[in-house]
Amino acid sequence: MVEILIKPIGIVHSNLKKRADAPKQGKEGAPDAWIEIQKEYTSGLQGLSIGDQIIIITWLHLSNRDILAVHPRGNKNNPLTGVFATRSPNRPNPLGLHKVIIKELSENTLRDGPLEAIDGTPVVDIKISI
Amino acid sequence: MVEILIKPIGIVHSNLKKRADAPKQGKEGAPDAWIEIQKEYTSGLQGLSIGDQIIIITWLHLSNRDILAVHPRGNKNNPLTGVFATRSPNRPNPLGLHKVIIKELSENTLRDGPLEAIDGTPVVDIKISI
Repeated sequence: MVEILIKPIGIVHSNLKKRADAPKQGKEGAPDAWIEIQKEYTSGLQGLSIGDQIIIITWLHLSNRDILAVHPRGNKNNPLTGVFATRSPNRPNPLGLHKVIIKELSENTLRDGPLEAIDGTPVVDIKISI
Repeated sequence: MVEILIKPIGIVHSNLKKRADAPKQGKEGAPDAWIEIQKEYTSGLQGLSIGDQIIIITWLHLSNRDILAVHPRGNKNNPLTGVFATRSPNRPNPLGLHKVIIKELSENTLRDGPLEAIDGTPVVDIKISI
C-alpha cells in the first residue's frame, strides 16, 4: 500500500499541557483552545464565522500506533475491544475528530471549544459538518 | 512543521469507478461499498457488529491539494469559499469523513453504506461516533 504524507495546517494552543490533564472527550469538560493556522493555509478559513460548528481533525501525536485493542475508557472492566470499535487515541493512524464551536476568529487563529486535544497537537484539516 | 506519515489500513471496493459517478455526499444516493482491511490491522475490528454506525476516514487520493478556495458544490453561483468552510474533497490534506452503517462483516471485510468514496480509495481510520 502507498504511504501518505500529511502536512499539518496548524497547531493547537491549549491550557491542557499533558494527556493526563485532558478529558477523554470534548464534551466531558474540555476547555476552549486556540488554533493557529499556518500562513500559507489561512485563505482556507474564508467563510467561517463565529458561532459556526466545525469539525477539527487533529493528529494525536502522543498516541501509540502499534495498539490494536484496548479496554474502552482505560477501564479494565470493559472487555478488550478493537481500536476501530472505540474512540481510543491509540490506533494505527491517530486522527482525532473534534466537533467544536468557533468562539473567536482572526486572520490566522480561531478560538474554539470544547477541545480535549492538548497543547502542541498538530491540526490537519477543518470541515463543516459530517 | 513536522510531516506525518499515514499507513492506509484498508481500501474501498465500490461500483463507483470515477469521481464523476460519485454523489457529493453519501446521503445523496451513494451505494454500499466493501472495505477490505489489511491483514495486520484486522484485529482492530473486534467489537464491531452489523447495524453499528461508524465513521470511516478515507484519503481522497484524486483530490487537488493546492486548492484553498472553491465554489461550494461546484456551482459558480455560490461565492468562492475557503475549503475549511466546505466539504470539498480538494484541500491540503484530503481526508474524507463518512458516516455509514455496517451491513455485513467478516474477518477482514465490511460492507457498509452509504459511501460516496470511489473504488480504490485508501481507508485510513475507523471510529465509532464523533
